[in-house]
Amino acid sequence: MNIVLLSGGSGKRLWPLSNDIRSKQFIKIFKNLDGSYESMVQRVYRQIKNMDADAVITIATSKTQVSAIHNQLGEEVGISVEPCRRDTFPAIALAASYLHDVKGIQEHEAIVVCPVDPYVNEDYFQAVQELSHQAETGQANLVLMGIEPTYPSEKYGYIIPTDNQSFSKVETFKEKPDRKTAETYIRQGALWNSGVFAFQLKYLLDKSHELMDYVNYQDLFERYESLPRISFDYAVAEKEKNIQAMRFQGQWKDLGTWNTLSEAMEEPAIGKVIMDESCENVHVVNEMDVPVLAMGLKDIVIGASSEGILISDKAQSSFIKPYVDSISQQIMFAEKSWGLYKVIDVAEDALTVKITLNPGEQMNYHSHKNRDEVWVVINGTGRTIVEGAERRVKSGDVILMQAEDRHTIMADSVLTLIEIQLGAEISTQDKQKFKLEGEE
Amino acid sequence: MNIVLLSGGSGKRLWPLSNDIRSKQFIKIFKNLDGSYESMVQRVYRQIKNMDADAVITIATSKTQVSAIHNQLGEEVGISVEPCRRDTFPAIALAASYLHDVKGIQEHEAIVVCPVDPYVNEDYFQAVQELSHQAETGQANLVLMGIEPTYPSEKYGYIIPTDNQSFSKVETFKEKPDRKTAETYIRQGALWNSGVFAFQLKYLLDKSHELMDYVNYQDLFERYESLPRISFDYAVAEKEKNIQAMRFQGQWKDLGTWNTLSEAMEEPAIGKVIMDESCENVHVVNEMDVPVLAMGLKDIVIGASSEGILISDKAQSSFIKPYVDSISQQIMFAEKSWGLYKVIDVAEDALTVKITLNPGEQMNYHSHKNRDEVWVVINGTGRTIVEGAERRVKSGDVILMQAEDRHTIMADSVLTLIEIQLGAEISTQDKQKFKLEGEE
Repeated sequence: MNIVLLSGGSGKRLWPLSNDIRSKQFIKIFKNLDGSYESMVQRVYRQIKNMDADAVITIATSKTQVSAIHNQLGEEVGISVEPCRRDTFPAIALAASYLHDVKGIQEHEAIVVCPVDPYVNEDYFQAVQELSHQAETGQANLVLMGIEPTYPSEKYGYIIPTDNQSFSKVETFKEKPDRKTAETYIRQGALWNSGVFAFQLKYLLDKSHELMDYVNYQDLFERYESLPRISFDYAVAEKEKNIQAMRFQGQWKDLGTWNTLSEAMEEPAIGKVIMDESCENVHVVNEMDVPVLAMGLKDIVIGASSEGILISDKAQSSFIKPYVDSISQQIMFAEKSWGLYKVIDVAEDALTVKITLNPGEQMNYHSHKNRDEVWVVINGTGRTIVEGAERRVKSGDVILMQAEDRHTIMADSVLTLIEIQLGAEISTQDKQKFKLEGEE
Repeated sequence: MNIVLLSGGSGKRLWPLSNDIRSKQFIKIFKNLDGSYESMVQRVYRQIKNMDADAVITIATSKTQVSAIHNQLGEEVGISVEPCRRDTFPAIALAASYLHDVKGIQEHEAIVVCPVDPYVNEDYFQAVQELSHQAETGQANLVLMGIEPTYPSEKYGYIIPTDNQSFSKVETFKEKPDRKTAETYIRQGALWNSGVFAFQLKYLLDKSHELMDYVNYQDLFERYESLPRISFDYAVAEKEKNIQAMRFQGQWKDLGTWNTLSEAMEEPAIGKVIMDESCENVHVVNEMDVPVLAMGLKDIVIGASSEGILISDKAQSSFIKPYVDSISQQIMFAEKSWGLYKVIDVAEDALTVKITLNPGEQMNYHSHKNRDEVWVVINGTGRTIVEGAERRVKSGDVILMQAEDRHTIMADSVLTLIEIQLGAEISTQDKQKFKLEGEE
């Protein structure tokens, strides 16, 4: 099976655990049997591999998520990187070209496109596989997975099929309706649109060439910025006459809000948390180093990270977005290709950051125009290069870098350092990258 | 008027704003007209000085609070420092000796003893002044201030007077009763014991010499550790036959819990706080640099500091102590004589601290046996001395100290630095102090 996972999203609705760099699918919130935690993307990846060890999984995502994906899924996973955001149709077209031109997938093979963040069980991916088989038969150009509605939700789009068979021809799509209209749809046998669909690769390549002018994957990648912002639903699904929908009745949850996320937590608290006995239906995720003490609370979610602290009534938490939009501060933590970055102090003309490099990893060789930096190694061993001069470093060593000095650090073991940035104009934009001698 | 303010207390009940070093009376929580905030001790000090600019105010406290008191009240305030904790009778005896032997207060003058943390208005200190005048008349050996009860509280001791006059002879004292007994007391005209009392200095000096063997203030100070732990109530009040109580009917609040503290807040939020419109009766004190977002909460207090985060139902907050007792971590912030100390990162074998020195201030000249230290100055100018070698420092300068190196820093302007402590056994106990050349 070939599966394309769409990994998008900003980080507003699950603030402060998500931010502009870490989307919700990377929050480690699901407990494994061994006591560790996995993220939405790790859970989905594991579930697919459990069902079909040979599945070819490609993640369609933006540049900003590549480091997090490799950190969480390893180097093996295929990634189709969107140079910028251009909505789902260009993203799926790019992934399709990648599968054909780079991965050598044959045109008659089926591709399933699936959001990266449904909270589901194994039966869901069995259904995904059936969807793939159905697309291979060629009976329809597009095969959708519809979810049997459990209530007249106003949050989802609806698929109206012509009958109640497990595979039905699709009559029409309806956008998010009001409650009353949703009730009418459900009486007519309508399904929620899960965002999962399958097609033969040739179908999508043809559509792509029909709608966009490009030669192959590399060409499409280079032109990406000039492509129109257009959704797959609008560009393809709504215009296609030959569509089938498959009914799925198993568990399917959209973990888009703190409320739904907390329902999927195996235990009420993650991190340093103390709850008194009078707490009822309280969920806490604390990524800070200091404890959270919760007393006498009911139906509350609490999230704490370097970005800030959320305390919300569960139902109310779905209205979080405008409040998070009103917060303007720099990114306080980030998962990098080489490890972790966490701001620990913000002062006038100075920023203090804790940096953890994974063994064998290194930063880019880079410089800053407008700031000096001081590194104090607090744990581990490695090497630094500053203006071409290499030096072995260990805990207690101090490395000084003036503005414009090119510098990097390589970790032998896990290497932790405190970085102090000094200057009147500190900005993440202020970074020039260089090649080290011998690098290509 | 001579007034002794008793400033004791650990920091459990108002965690995380208070800790083992910062007692609740130093939390800046009351808004001034100019938009700044004052603490309980600052508010009480200001109220006394407003009423009687010539009042001689002495704060009886332990060594650990001296820096905070000077920082908040200035260098002028009299402090009677208890070398260790020995309950209220030795503390009051020491303060009385200090007033007589050091401050030259005459034996016939009245002294009022008062807790440092009542939340009161000006009328309270007018009553305190009346209490002082009454003690001066010598009609009774001890004059107490009793509070007219507003409900049958189980939290307070009760004074049973012989009649309902504004000054009455005291018949007896009753310890914290149950609700039913409290109701009976109140029907009998009983008063809450406010902990405020007045006497002529001679009375207390006589009692002190009667119960403890010492010559003068200096001698008592030196013997302090060998004194018995005994309360003033037990040693003096309960045995004294000639006591009067004065009735006070004005506002009097004991800000001992988050619930009562929040009632005294002028506005619902201090610090970076966003509350949505659906919050009702919510109070937030956020001393962190990152925002707190509160949504859909009712009757909740939230406190956040470097120590941790409390979210509690208001009524439930009075049961906080055992939960705070269960938290074991190092002190995360402290107000020092020279400025502020805040832990910003805790790692294995390393601690990162942000240190702010006030202009003209300096640390003790000191060394550590078991840790190296690195200072990176991030703001301001000053001088460092390391092993006798003096050096001018400014933002960006790095100072290295090996274990055993004697070191200090003096601030010209406000001086901020990041201190990185490195070693396997980092402890606040690991500190040896030295004199600088020319110091006495």
